[in-house]
Amino acid sequence: MKKYFLHSILCSLILAFQFTSIAQNKIVVFQSDFGLKDGAVSAMKGVAMGVDSSLKLFDLTHEIPAYNIWEAAYRLEQTVMYWPAGTVFVSVVDPGVGTERKSVVLKTKAGHFIVTPDNGTLTLIAASEGIEAIREIDEAVNRRRGSEKSYTFHGRDVYAYTAARLASGTINFDHVGKLLPNEVVNIPYQQAEINGRTIKGTISILDVQYGNIWTNIPAELFKQLNPAIGNIFSVKIFHNKTKVYEGTMPYSATFGAVAKGKPLLYLNSLLQVSFALNMGSFSNSYKVYSGSDWHVEIGLKQ
Amino acid sequence: MKKYFLHSILCSLILAFQFTSIAQNKIVVFQSDFGLKDGAVSAMKGVAMGVDSSLKLFDLTHEIPAYNIWEAAYRLEQTVMYWPAGTVFVSVVDPGVGTERKSVVLKTKAGHFIVTPDNGTLTLIAASEGIEAIREIDEAVNRRRGSEKSYTFHGRDVYAYTAARLASGTINFDHVGKLLPNEVVNIPYQQAEINGRTIKGTISILDVQYGNIWTNIPAELFKQLNPAIGNIFSVKIFHNKTKVYEGTMPYSATFGAVAKGKPLLYLNSLLQVSFALNMGSFSNSYKVYSGSDWHVEIGLKQ
Amino acid sequence: MKKYFLHSILCSLILAFQFTSIAQNKIVVFQSDFGLKDGAVSAMKGVAMGVDSSLKLFDLTHEIPAYNIWEAAYRLEQTVMYWPAGTVFVSVVDPGVGTERKSVVLKTKAGHFIVTPDNGTLTLIAASEGIEAIREIDEAVNRRRGSEKSYTFHGRDVYAYTAARLASGTINFDHVGKLLPNEVVNIPYQQAEINGRTIKGTISILDVQYGNIWTNIPAELFKQLNPAIGNIFSVKIFHNKTKVYEGTMPYSATFGAVAKGKPLLYLNSLLQVSFALNMGSFSNSYKVYSGSDWHVEIGLKQ
Repeated sequence: MKKYFLHSILCSLILAFQFTSIAQNKIVVFQSDFGLKDGAVSAMKGVAMGVDSSLKLFDLTHEIPAYNIWEAAYRLEQTVMYWPAGTVFVSVVDPGVGTERKSVVLKTKAGHFIVTPDNGTLTLIAASEGIEAIREIDEAVNRRRGSEKSYTFHGRDVYAYTAARLASGTINFDHVGKLLPNEVVNIPYQQAEINGRTIKGTISILDVQYGNIWTNIPAELFKQLNPAIGNIFSVKIFHNKTKVYEGTMPYSATFGAVAKGKPLLYLNSLLQVSFALNMGSFSNSYKVYSGSDWHVEIGLKQ
Repeated sequence: MKKYFLHSILCSLILAFQFTSIAQNKIVVFQSDFGLKDGAVSAMKGVAMGVDSSLKLFDLTHEIPAYNIWEAAYRLEQTVMYWPAGTVFVSVVDPGVGTERKSVVLKTKAGHFIVTPDNGTLTLIAASEGIEAIREIDEAVNRRRGSEKSYTFHGRDVYAYTAARLASGTINFDHVGKLLPNEVVNIPYQQAEINGRTIKGTISILDVQYGNIWTNIPAELFKQLNPAIGNIFSVKIFHNKTKVYEGTMPYSATFGAVAKGKPLLYLNSLLQVSFALNMGSFSNSYKVYSGSDWHVEIGLKQ
Repeated sequence: MKKYFLHSILCSLILAFQFTSIAQNKIVVFQSDFGLKDGAVSAMKGVAMGVDSSLKLFDLTHEIPAYNIWEAAYRLEQTVMYWPAGTVFVSVVDPGVGTERKSVVLKTKAGHFIVTPDNGTLTLIAASEGIEAIREIDEAVNRRRGSEKSYTFHGRDVYAYTAARLASGTINFDHVGKLLPNEVVNIPYQQAEINGRTIKGTISILDVQYGNIWTNIPAELFKQLNPAIGNIFSVKIFHNKTKVYEGTMPYSATFGAVAKGKPLLYLNSLLQVSFALNMGSFSNSYKVYSGSDWHVEIGLKQ
């Protein structure tokens, strides 16, 4: 009979886990500008495993250029949506570490959690997934024990620790800390806009491995030009006020649709207007880079 | 009694899992030329976690040089054998994305599954492990829902998604799609061959971290020269028709057997003839690289 | 009744697992100088998964500069403490592969296991966590079957294999091999020391991603100068006997406490005296690097 009780307890625990995991799903995804050459990422994961060794830990990227909050924001926007609801993200790109920026957890309307300094990192994901609620991390509770003397590694002692506690169900979202107003610190950037037969936008990121140019012009806006595969587009690229590139290229469904080294306009995997050279690097060839000071202008040629 | 039934169901589920996992083992290993700087790899893993969060996800490498199918083939050949039968590999090096290459799953005679465009990536692993069967991925079934509008990210929407469904047992190999003939697209390359006292071969890869030179000459062929540790070999290296290196070096069991900076011939961890400098980079020192246009000729000196 | 017995067996297995996991916790953390461009790390993990697919595998770093034992030692020292007791580490930086160095497993007094060649890699962690016991790996037992013909990849065939067997509880620490004396091979290095109002030490590592300079001077020693935030320090940096840098900088709690590009002295996340430029790279700007031939001298200015 004792054994039977033991079974009950064990299986109830298993069931209990199943239910609590509806909110958080035991998955933690880490992003930072730490790189992979030292032990910082590993220390964060060690702390998480110390909280609950049944957590599943993944990486978004740790190669965000140092202090580049815009790119941190962009990478979250690019990938969070592909992870199941309940996944907890940790993003630590924190040039203001130790200054007045708040440490927060954003819960999006899609059910993702993002643990981060509120320094602009949440600009894009808050806009696209919507803000369910934001809480400020109460470091009196949510800080690794014994870490009070440490000056500078919030990534490990506060963010990774809080994310692991939240993902594992050790704490609920309520226990993160006090509710903040439903708004985040925003990085200003130029929105995509259509004006007659021309669309303006920003180069939001490079597809770095291949040197492709990704803009913030979404397919829906692009479609208002009634483009067909094979149509020729004029493309201008500006760095601040300086024109860096002007040319024409076909709207293509595949890179192989143009000759080797030739440019094409395509919709990338996020369904945004992008430019590439088939088997080449558009960025290297034309010295075109990304960020809020890089603008584009595209138009369908007659 | 109700509780008892619950136990039966739970434990049966556990048992059922044990049995279905004989075919596929819940392990997925990813390879690509995406690099680790953006969110592409993470998006693939997010999709896999969305299919089944009990999957175990690993990386082979994501640093395959862009569009280098030969190296993708080589890395699979180098590592697949060390993973347990039932492991599902995803390899996405796909210069022909959107063109006519087929998306396939190879099941090897050793019980490994490889999900990839059939563009030469399978050249070496199909030869070494043998082809049990190949199926073309039926994208009507095996494509992430909502991804139909996306033009270019097969890695995430088809390959990662299909691999996760297969590895988790959501589908069996039969459900991947229709059977294809038992043959793969092959990259032509020079085989290792012995002629009297000379062996010719190809530099199949560099041991990049150290600058060592790895050929495709296997130990069995090498042994036909009756080499003994300490024997001196003549080594010639050609880039196409041009001789780039000519020298002599001892056959050594350890790098420390020669002085610092001196060359040695050894059998690498894959038991293939290789060249190195003790504590140095053979590749950098002599400008020797790898690929199908790099040939070697070795002979035992009298 | 049969089913009930089955439950007993299953649940007992679960319980048994819980208990054996007190010693080892199924977590393996890998470190090497292999880089992530080839299949070496993946082959090690494949071997581990073949031992027990319920293991949880992580990375410390694989970007240790080739053959740099000092840095391998430093990275272990930096991160092992943040992982739970029972975690098994594999460190493979092995310029003497195939020579006389011993293959060992160190169990620290904190309950961490480190599987490595005993070539200096254990210098710092053995000192900080203390030596509970060291055993030499008995390769007659703890070597992957079929690997006897392989000359050079101990990382995969001995270290990863033994670590996986140990972490999974397939073997206990006793079964690793024979006990060795409680001492490790040590790399000589200059300890931090105070002399009146001056502290000398070594640049033990760079915070490579940011170019910050980390010394081996601990907070406890630094505090003997009675420093207050804002106090100005004189800092001299020597490469061997040559003075490479001389300047003054404030002791700061945050990087933002000084203007962009200006130097500061701070305590890093390991509570050691460090130097940085706010939003810049101290290392690049002043050509200052790390290792046993880089010394520093700091003093509190009047």
